[in-house]
Amino acid sequence: MKDNELTSRWPVPELADLPADLRERILEVQAKAGFVPNVFLALAHRPAEWRAFMAYHDALLVKDTGSLTKGEREMIITTTSAANHCLYCVVAHGAILRIHEKKPLVADQVAINHRKADITPRQRAMLDFAMKVCQHSHEVDDADFSALRPHGFSDDDIWDIAAITAFFGLSNRLANVSGMRPNDEFYLMGRVPRSKG
Amino acid sequence: MKDNELTSRWPVPELADLPADLRERILEVQAKAGFVPNVFLALAHRPAEWRAFMAYHDALLVKDTGSLTKGEREMIITTTSAANHCLYCVVAHGAILRIHEKKPLVADQVAINHRKADITPRQRAMLDFAMKVCQHSHEVDDADFSALRPHGFSDDDIWDIAAITAFFGLSNRLANVSGMRPNDEFYLMGRVPRSKG
Amino acid sequence: MKDNELTSRWPVPELADLPADLRERILEVQAKAGFVPNVFLALAHRPAEWRAFMAYHDALLVKDTGSLTKGEREMIITTTSAANHCLYCVVAHGAILRIHEKKPLVADQVAINHRKADITPRQRAMLDFAMKVCQHSHEVDDADFSALRPHGFSDDDIWDIAAITAFFGLSNRLANVSGMRPNDEFYLMGRVPRSKG
Amino acid sequence: MKDNELTSRWPVPELADLPADLRERILEVQAKAGFVPNVFLALAHRPAEWRAFMAYHDALLVKDTGSLTKGEREMIITTTSAANHCLYCVVAHGAILRIHEKKPLVADQVAINHRKADITPRQRAMLDFAMKVCQHSHEVDDADFSALRPHGFSDDDIWDIAAITAFFGLSNRLANVSGMRPNDEFYLMGRVPRSKG
Amino acid sequence: MKDNELTSRWPVPELADLPADLRERILEVQAKAGFVPNVFLALAHRPAEWRAFMAYHDALLVKDTGSLTKGEREMIITTTSAANHCLYCVVAHGAILRIHEKKPLVADQVAINHRKADITPRQRAMLDFAMKVCQHSHEVDDADFSALRPHGFSDDDIWDIAAITAFFGLSNRLANVSGMRPNDEFYLMGRVPRSKG
Amino acid sequence: MKDNELTSRWPVPELADLPADLRERILEVQAKAGFVPNVFLALAHRPAEWRAFMAYHDALLVKDTGSLTKGEREMIITTTSAANHCLYCVVAHGAILRIHEKKPLVADQVAINHRKADITPRQRAMLDFAMKVCQHSHEVDDADFSALRPHGFSDDDIWDIAAITAFFGLSNRLANVSGMRPNDEFYLMGRVPRSKG
Repeated sequence: MKDNELTSRWPVPELADLPADLRERILEVQAKAGFVPNVFLALAHRPAEWRAFMAYHDALLVKDTGSLTKGEREMIITTTSAANHCLYCVVAHGAILRIHEKKPLVADQVAINHRKADITPRQRAMLDFAMKVCQHSHEVDDADFSALRPHGFSDDDIWDIAAITAFFGLSNRLANVSGMRPNDEFYLMGRVPRSKG
Repeated sequence: MKDNELTSRWPVPELADLPADLRERILEVQAKAGFVPNVFLALAHRPAEWRAFMAYHDALLVKDTGSLTKGEREMIITTTSAANHCLYCVVAHGAILRIHEKKPLVADQVAINHRKADITPRQRAMLDFAMKVCQHSHEVDDADFSALRPHGFSDDDIWDIAAITAFFGLSNRLANVSGMRPNDEFYLMGRVPRSKG
Repeated sequence: MKDNELTSRWPVPELADLPADLRERILEVQAKAGFVPNVFLALAHRPAEWRAFMAYHDALLVKDTGSLTKGEREMIITTTSAANHCLYCVVAHGAILRIHEKKPLVADQVAINHRKADITPRQRAMLDFAMKVCQHSHEVDDADFSALRPHGFSDDDIWDIAAITAFFGLSNRLANVSGMRPNDEFYLMGRVPRSKG
Repeated sequence: MKDNELTSRWPVPELADLPADLRERILEVQAKAGFVPNVFLALAHRPAEWRAFMAYHDALLVKDTGSLTKGEREMIITTTSAANHCLYCVVAHGAILRIHEKKPLVADQVAINHRKADITPRQRAMLDFAMKVCQHSHEVDDADFSALRPHGFSDDDIWDIAAITAFFGLSNRLANVSGMRPNDEFYLMGRVPRSKG
Repeated sequence: MKDNELTSRWPVPELADLPADLRERILEVQAKAGFVPNVFLALAHRPAEWRAFMAYHDALLVKDTGSLTKGEREMIITTTSAANHCLYCVVAHGAILRIHEKKPLVADQVAINHRKADITPRQRAMLDFAMKVCQHSHEVDDADFSALRPHGFSDDDIWDIAAITAFFGLSNRLANVSGMRPNDEFYLMGRVPRSKG
Repeated sequence: MKDNELTSRWPVPELADLPADLRERILEVQAKAGFVPNVFLALAHRPAEWRAFMAYHDALLVKDTGSLTKGEREMIITTTSAANHCLYCVVAHGAILRIHEKKPLVADQVAINHRKADITPRQRAMLDFAMKVCQHSHEVDDADFSALRPHGFSDDDIWDIAAITAFFGLSNRLANVSGMRPNDEFYLMGRVPRSKG
């Protein structure tokens, strides 16, 4: 297997063959990141699903309401994606986590065992809840909500934790089944101080 | 707990307070079904997520391509939602499954043990794959795809099975965490011959 | 597979060929229910086991002592049988549960997730204990008994919960291995108000 | 805790207070074994259940039909009871297993890992099936039956394996919940050559 | 399979062919125990690993510091080795446990379910901790340490519990993979009063 | 928590207070690596165990026999340590893996899901076996050995795979319980081409 190919089990369309709105968004991302994250291409054989996926993604991650920082959102994604053994999401969102938190070690820590990570007690509580939503959502009960309150999480914040976990559970399964590979660029981003990553 | 209330842990907006596009869709569904399925209301406190959720839902379930019948799509939802212990989705989609398949028993069967259900070998293979995507997606490999081929599933069909499973895994987690209740109407739909259900 | 056949992996005797006491009981049940529940036939190839099974069944379910209502006994059976993925017992005892409790929705609720069911706190505690006996009986300890006391369960009631769970764990395994099908009649019983079901 | 007391969480009746048929059977067992196995006393506070339990026990273990030897029946009990972490049944039936098979080591072997025990390939297949019935009965399918055929197991033998496993799953749960202790006498029986054990 | 052979999947060297230090230790053990425990031979095809293994073993078990008795150390080994389904370690260390504790029943008890064993509350807490280290070490946290303190365990004692569990987890895996058999002699040792066992 | 402290729950001795042989080895490692890996200090409060640990480590990893490359040995460690959620070993040995294999991405890949890693079929088979030894060693059987043969693994190689897995299972548990932190230096080693890592 060559290191840098996309390798999905499904067809990966050429940029030129995509609907205009997909192509536009992809070019925009490429301009900003310097490369096209593979998820944008691997889902593109299904434009309607692609649009819904990106709309959901943006609704959860690109917004200014609530007390979760961008770094904390990525922390939830990295932690629960590791529990789902999703290579794409751990590597890609681990990179974004490092950048937002300006902590080069934290992504590897939460991916292996969030209980040992250099995070705040608030973040630990947030991740404990996210892991329960990820793995045993049917057992979530009042006690889980009560454990979050002392850390200042509002009802809206708790919805954010649950919804981000749930949405990336969807993403994890698509990536796992399709064999979607993380771009090589992600692995190093945010690890080296002062790099543009 | 009163039997017919919605009971979500999050606020349920009044119809009048919703953005016009949400209200319109909800009224349309109500006109067709005779009631408003609770999921339309329970997600409505987050209009952007609501829109993305419905767009994803429609992209997977309201389309004419692929060989999966509407009943088979609902079969996947009912089976994997039971594995995730999601009361809302099993009851609501079990109802739709009964109606589409015109088989009043099949929803209860796949929810308890799809191996004992009155389904075709093709449907059995489809559900085996869906359950693996639901529970162990990181272990999906070539052998799982090979097991589907003899039943006539195309690459596109297999994506459908995986994507429906993944999307309702998201839905299951939101319903479980919010405590979203299925409408009472669903429980009986499709069970009694010739009823409007 | 035809919908209404018994389908056991073992021979199903003709009524005429059965020992008199089995035949008598079966005819009695048929007179009362309007049909012969398949478990009576599927076990009949082993008359001695049949007699012991029915005697155990009656000792636990046909008695007037203790504070568990008939509906609560069926609730234990339905909940733990779903955990064991036993189609026969969930469908048959779910029907009896609906009838005794006069609640057409409760069987589907406890089968999917008893934590979300419309039941009393006492019933929730009862089912929590039953599920522990079903799945982790070796870890049952003083704390489990203490959690039941505030709800008014006596020692005798607790034995009933445990024994019903244990007995239907036996029944679940026989039904699963034999492929015993629930009679079609059970699926609808107790769902429609005023029906004799 | 004194080593030799019965310690059940439920009352243990005096022999004199028991119904005549229970007392008679208990005295008979005592005469034969030299002591009263605690299960006879721990269940006696419920005479109707006691009678059903013993009738079921006898129907499965005291009979001359089928190809399973007495030792093989005890092997099934010891193996599956260990999987259920039931101290009473492993110790008591492990003793009877050693005696019937005249193999002083085999009970300890199957209790820890039946794959490493000094047993025949036929017995290995039998225990593999029993373990599946014990732990995943809802997944039993044609392949499990096919694996048993080459070893000469008839349909009736397979029922015996499943039924013994299922019945002792019931027994294991009652013993675990009640805290029923194995009599000290069992631990050494069948270990020392030429002993009466 | 003959009952008394070693049966490892790897070569078992002749005593004469071993390095002098291995041979010496083995002869010393044989002189003391009356036989050569198979682990000494099964690991001997790798002298460097053998030496490290024995050095680790002695560092943990042959020492006079700390409050854990020799019996308690063997109790940890027997309990966690049963959780790992390691026949060799349960049988061999169960024997040593019986001898040190002078309790002929305790090894069988902790191997099946340490919650039902005739042990002190201190020993119960010790085994609860050992089991967590054995099965979920990444979840060990402050609460686990706090639960040990009231029983008088020092930091050094807690290290001993963890290290013994961890070391025998290594030993269990080597024994399981190699198919190393316990010597027949172990099974009876410490069971019969006044025997040298 | 400060990022760079060792944080073990047990005392970390000063270098000056250590026995000469420990101090010597530690200084030697420091000279070579540029820092002292924390495991050398975290275990040092127990010199006898430290010596056995290092001897075992060297016997498995510092040798020229067998067909496993140094990179493959580190691959086994990284993969199984991730399954055990051991932050120290994944980070430290992941670094060494990157260096030996000269593949900056492979450590993150095998830690999340070795099935998706850019490795050879031989390495995939090696890791499948290692994971079984790590998680279900009591189920290892002939079929597992047969699956390794076509890839050219000798009996000695298979022992190496199993022994490395087993030894780092010990290491994982000690690191998890003690809260041993990986040195910050490890995280970046081998990721940047031509760096000193």
